[in-house]
Amino acid sequence: MADTVIHLENDYSECAHPAILDRIARENTNARAGYGLDDVCGSAAARIRVEIGRADADIHFLTGGTSANLIALAAFLRPHEAVICAEQAHINVHETGAVEATGHKLLAIPTTDGKLTPAMVEVVYAKQTDEHMVKPRLVYISNATELGTVYTAGELYSLREQCDRLKLLLFMDGARLGSALAASDVRWIDLPRSLDAFYIGGTKNGALFGEAMVIVNESLKEDFRYLTKQRGGMLAKGFLLGHQFDALFSDGLYLTLARRANAIADGLRGVLEARGVRFLARTRTNMVFPILPDAWITKLRGRFAFHDTERVSETETAVRLVTSWATPETVIAEFADCVNQL
Amino acid sequence: MADTVIHLENDYSECAHPAILDRIARENTNARAGYGLDDVCGSAAARIRVEIGRADADIHFLTGGTSANLIALAAFLRPHEAVICAEQAHINVHETGAVEATGHKLLAIPTTDGKLTPAMVEVVYAKQTDEHMVKPRLVYISNATELGTVYTAGELYSLREQCDRLKLLLFMDGARLGSALAASDVRWIDLPRSLDAFYIGGTKNGALFGEAMVIVNESLKEDFRYLTKQRGGMLAKGFLLGHQFDALFSDGLYLTLARRANAIADGLRGVLEARGVRFLARTRTNMVFPILPDAWITKLRGRFAFHDTERVSETETAVRLVTSWATPETVIAEFADCVNQL
Amino acid sequence: MADTVIHLENDYSECAHPAILDRIARENTNARAGYGLDDVCGSAAARIRVEIGRADADIHFLTGGTSANLIALAAFLRPHEAVICAEQAHINVHETGAVEATGHKLLAIPTTDGKLTPAMVEVVYAKQTDEHMVKPRLVYISNATELGTVYTAGELYSLREQCDRLKLLLFMDGARLGSALAASDVRWIDLPRSLDAFYIGGTKNGALFGEAMVIVNESLKEDFRYLTKQRGGMLAKGFLLGHQFDALFSDGLYLTLARRANAIADGLRGVLEARGVRFLARTRTNMVFPILPDAWITKLRGRFAFHDTERVSETETAVRLVTSWATPETVIAEFADCVNQL
Amino acid sequence: MADTVIHLENDYSECAHPAILDRIARENTNARAGYGLDDVCGSAAARIRVEIGRADADIHFLTGGTSANLIALAAFLRPHEAVICAEQAHINVHETGAVEATGHKLLAIPTTDGKLTPAMVEVVYAKQTDEHMVKPRLVYISNATELGTVYTAGELYSLREQCDRLKLLLFMDGARLGSALAASDVRWIDLPRSLDAFYIGGTKNGALFGEAMVIVNESLKEDFRYLTKQRGGMLAKGFLLGHQFDALFSDGLYLTLARRANAIADGLRGVLEARGVRFLARTRTNMVFPILPDAWITKLRGRFAFHDTERVSETETAVRLVTSWATPETVIAEFADCVNQL
Repeated sequence: MADTVIHLENDYSECAHPAILDRIARENTNARAGYGLDDVCGSAAARIRVEIGRADADIHFLTGGTSANLIALAAFLRPHEAVICAEQAHINVHETGAVEATGHKLLAIPTTDGKLTPAMVEVVYAKQTDEHMVKPRLVYISNATELGTVYTAGELYSLREQCDRLKLLLFMDGARLGSALAASDVRWIDLPRSLDAFYIGGTKNGALFGEAMVIVNESLKEDFRYLTKQRGGMLAKGFLLGHQFDALFSDGLYLTLARRANAIADGLRGVLEARGVRFLARTRTNMVFPILPDAWITKLRGRFAFHDTERVSETETAVRLVTSWATPETVIAEFADCVNQL
Repeated sequence: MADTVIHLENDYSECAHPAILDRIARENTNARAGYGLDDVCGSAAARIRVEIGRADADIHFLTGGTSANLIALAAFLRPHEAVICAEQAHINVHETGAVEATGHKLLAIPTTDGKLTPAMVEVVYAKQTDEHMVKPRLVYISNATELGTVYTAGELYSLREQCDRLKLLLFMDGARLGSALAASDVRWIDLPRSLDAFYIGGTKNGALFGEAMVIVNESLKEDFRYLTKQRGGMLAKGFLLGHQFDALFSDGLYLTLARRANAIADGLRGVLEARGVRFLARTRTNMVFPILPDAWITKLRGRFAFHDTERVSETETAVRLVTSWATPETVIAEFADCVNQL
Repeated sequence: MADTVIHLENDYSECAHPAILDRIARENTNARAGYGLDDVCGSAAARIRVEIGRADADIHFLTGGTSANLIALAAFLRPHEAVICAEQAHINVHETGAVEATGHKLLAIPTTDGKLTPAMVEVVYAKQTDEHMVKPRLVYISNATELGTVYTAGELYSLREQCDRLKLLLFMDGARLGSALAASDVRWIDLPRSLDAFYIGGTKNGALFGEAMVIVNESLKEDFRYLTKQRGGMLAKGFLLGHQFDALFSDGLYLTLARRANAIADGLRGVLEARGVRFLARTRTNMVFPILPDAWITKLRGRFAFHDTERVSETETAVRLVTSWATPETVIAEFADCVNQL
Repeated sequence: MADTVIHLENDYSECAHPAILDRIARENTNARAGYGLDDVCGSAAARIRVEIGRADADIHFLTGGTSANLIALAAFLRPHEAVICAEQAHINVHETGAVEATGHKLLAIPTTDGKLTPAMVEVVYAKQTDEHMVKPRLVYISNATELGTVYTAGELYSLREQCDRLKLLLFMDGARLGSALAASDVRWIDLPRSLDAFYIGGTKNGALFGEAMVIVNESLKEDFRYLTKQRGGMLAKGFLLGHQFDALFSDGLYLTLARRANAIADGLRGVLEARGVRFLARTRTNMVFPILPDAWITKLRGRFAFHDTERVSETETAVRLVTSWATPETVIAEFADCVNQL
């Protein structure tokens, strides 16, 4: 597809970071055991365990985000147990009822920034009083959120405390975890300390595809591979996921890619801020949501490709600019050039 | 993984045929729309439509076999509708109850060779008489079967007739469809004429991963993408599947790879037949099931890696030899050399 | 349970109207076919068909409300199809996620009075734009609602029009349908003209238990008995339900009981209005929600049993008074006596 | 329904034993708490606990057999866990896939008499070897079985041992438990000693409807009421079930009714044995399966109503005679009279 526009639609518009493709090409004809029981999956899992500082964590390499979410929740919950989440949560809006299709109700609460607070958890929890209602059992957060916002380490630990108090599990959807870590004070080692389970997103941070599910809570580990297989999430050539995460967790590549994407997003943000542009949400991750005059948008689309998010006024629309490992370095200068002529 | 043994365990032990990896590498940084709505998926689907001679077929690229099966059956059936299948069917044995997890009962019937006949379908059908029992609605066959056997074109059309008579759908799991077509008189154009839907297996015939679901029956097409997404089977970077199937369906690569795998398997079979070896099942596909003295097996394992299938007598075991696009040309000679010394 | 208090907690606190018990006692040892395939179920269904003016309606006698709702929605929807309902809807709050347990998402919208409007339906519908989201397919209303409010005939027909426009099904939970009909201008014949399916509640209007599902839309009728059986809702002694509904639909008993309950509730409401009491919701059905000073409540509980609904201010609580076929005639006078002394 | 034939079709063809109807009529207008949280449910549960000798058993009153089975299995199993049962098991044949509809696979094994043995359990268990297959977790038996056969106490304890060895749960469907106890050496106290959970059938032994679920295994007790509600099995007027089981477990009524039904069946069996008739299954419960010449069947149908079971030869059919609390005393003499004239 020959084109001259610069793509800011998504962080999953290109195949994979060259380090990953090279790795696969190099290992192409080396035969390995199937279903993730191979040495490279072992190596990748070991690297992740070192990074997060938990030698006993279970690591499972899965094929995609919706699949990871539905497998985890189906594995962790009994039929009457429900999930507390933000109204904007990916599982609540953009997974075609995948969690409900495994039988579980979502208890969604409105938020302004896509983030849950301990108080919100309490509000939802308190409403479910007896066996005529579902029983809240798991709190789902995404980090970065669907609005590009992030949790601080303090916020994660506060949620942990609340979950402990209410006997709830805390699960994190990390589809954009790299970007979140690169934009916050949260360190890898904070994750197993505050969460029962989470996944590390590969698809949106340089992998061809794949997410690494990390299960910290001992009671959630049993038979996870059965659930993975049952829900269609166990890749025959599991070593493909092993290669990718082994590469991503070598030499700090995972965060390097995320930081680069964030930095470019920061650059775009800076250009817009300098022109006094307002934003739909305050973000420091790889997603920028400027509110732009429609006339600007038309002109920008001549050189940049991006999606609308929502109409804000009669003459303005919020759009979404997304950067990734693949966004060309030159985009900030080109964007500044273009914006400054508007 | 450096090794000197020749791998005959599986047809999914290596990454992908070089034509596929090259294609992805070449297209690596070309941005494309997500979720399979891109031009290469379009091109791949068009090539498949031409091959099967049905311009109106719906084609969906999915991530794996269990996922393809459970998505299709969940999409095609109402809750009380059941699936007729062979006792050995992959969905009945090796998918961890994936179909039941979507709510449907399997009505399995014993077979000697993994193949269903119209008479077997009738037997199962006739037992389900009223609303206290499930209602048979879909016949599931695999081709090649789990035992490496294949259907003839005549057999497929006979099943079609039976299904029409009993108002049943006919679905084919084509995880090893390439090998089946290369080993039988079934042509691509016979598939849409005899089946309501089927999938073309990529994982076991040279792809990194992926299966192409083909829906022929108009009444089954509606909203299939919703089901795909809901069950976690919609790949964000859907174009990865597009690239692979576009390559596999260019210049006849798909059948070329299957024929090559079958030819090597034929070679191994010939070596064994020449020594008077019996076989568990009569196959002409890429899976060979010789019954071997245990002493032979020990010796063969010094140079070849393969799995046991079942113990046949006190001194003999049936083993499974599987060939693929990646099996080295030299294997037949080496195998003959080794067997002839036993 | 000997007691002197008058029970206003529920409309399902006693066994059954004597006409129903007498009928069962009289027919006790007459053997009949099982599972609802008997003559009295036939007779009861025929009476209902006459009442609603639809000779072609399918009638199924079910055991309870949650069961009726989950069977109907599981029967009517494909896996990715969702239900639009009020936030207060019984299926959303008080059925322990029964509908989600069959795999379907509920799309709930806040309402002040428990009633959906065409505009609300549109709002929810418009948000679901593609296959990454569930597909709205059915609108669930309850009449009377969980807050005791009712739909007018005009409102039902408006919802019908909206549903037709958006290709949605309209389903009514009639757990308290008797009370709703007795308190509104809706006639029996308006129901099949405005709804695709609905159930007529027996449990809360004089039956031991049981609800009559009425399916009007031809496309929803197929195989409903399979779904009923599969979800555990097919009573072995189905004739018990037949006896009850045959009695309820003889000589207008169903509406007679509902009118009586409403009339007593009206009496209680009048007593409270005369003292200037405010109400949580404006109702004319058999549920009254007065907001009372806590001191009053304490005193009233000496002679009447009822449940709190919610705290309204530091000194006031909304309570729920429910009347039924079993509420003694004398309650209004006693209540007036008691309230007027407060 | 006026008729002169004697009904031997089912043990659920009439309403209820008079002791039960009288009880309900007597208590009719006494208001009680809903959903089984009333004093009579408490009393009935206490009586059952005394009978089985387990003060700590959890007792839940449910509405019917299919409902009881699906609620229990959904409550006890994780999604990938499967049920071992006889091919003839009610859950496998006659519940319209109710257990699969909750997501679980049944692993059925052929039996001649409907009974499982420890060896059969082992055979099924041994086949499920890894996470590509479901994980056997619960053994389902029915007692009496679908063929009218019963387990001895020794057989129950042997199954218990096997289950302990293989870490399996043992669950008994007691739809016809009364008849089984009355026809075997199994005592009430053997049940909690050998089973993790079971239900005591009311529907087929004199109740209007209802089954009493008994949960002995501590680890299975949690939140069972949530599951009951979620699957539509929680009766609003739960006290109706309380009344019935309180009556059935007063003065030994439950076994008295079962013994009477068995005795009449014995009488019928004796008549047939005296004429040299063969039987499909050897039973001592309330179901008799004689193989009769078709000419006999035609003549018997002039005075007795019963169902065919299966055709056995060109001139013979196995039929099913079922007795109950409601079968008239005179049936044996009439049957003898009729048979002896054939």
